[in-house]
Amino acid sequence: MGYDRMCPRYERAALLLGKKWSGLILRVLMGGARRFHEFREQVPELSERLLSERLREFEEEGLVRREVQACRPVLILYELTEKGRELEAVVQSIQAWANKWIEVETVEQPAGR
Amino acid sequence: MGYDRMCPRYERAALLLGKKWSGLILRVLMGGARRFHEFREQVPELSERLLSERLREFEEEGLVRREVQACRPVLILYELTEKGRELEAVVQSIQAWANKWIEVETVEQPAGR
Repeated sequence: MGYDRMCPRYERAALLLGKKWSGLILRVLMGGARRFHEFREQVPELSERLLSERLREFEEEGLVRREVQACRPVLILYELTEKGRELEAVVQSIQAWANKWIEVETVEQPAGR
Repeated sequence: MGYDRMCPRYERAALLLGKKWSGLILRVLMGGARRFHEFREQVPELSERLLSERLREFEEEGLVRREVQACRPVLILYELTEKGRELEAVVQSIQAWANKWIEVETVEQPAGR
């Protein structure tokens, strides 16, 4: 793979995946079909507006399929298509890099009594 | 790897890598040390302001090292640290996915005379 010239396919992919929260939303979807509120359980800082926007973009790009189940109340599920599912290698490579290189503050639990 | 809970390391990494242009700047850097104007040769749509901002963030996060060579005119090079270099797996997984799934319009070259 040569790096001396930008590849237009890479460029489009990187701009799509590189929108804020995309990487987090994809990771949630790797776990299976999800309802809207389930994303926010895993990513509480994500606003409803931005979540809707990203899910709609993913749907338009063919990464995500929206499934409406005809029960009451209506159940709407978002799940990855094959194209979306194959981003698992990207999610896993970010995870592997983060495990090695990213430090997070561990919050001490107060000693129980 | 479990997807039922967000991993704080992944979250930090995804928010860092998921800023606009980050994926493109990283791909340019995979080719070796670069001068400021060389990024814009590969990514002409990227403004100077955003390029400076991303490079400064990458430096602060320890992904990029800024090297000033004492010649005239002064030569400033940006290059990946080990931490940054190890993002090559991420860049390559995006490239592999893009090669398979992203279509781009090919621009016909006018027949030469």
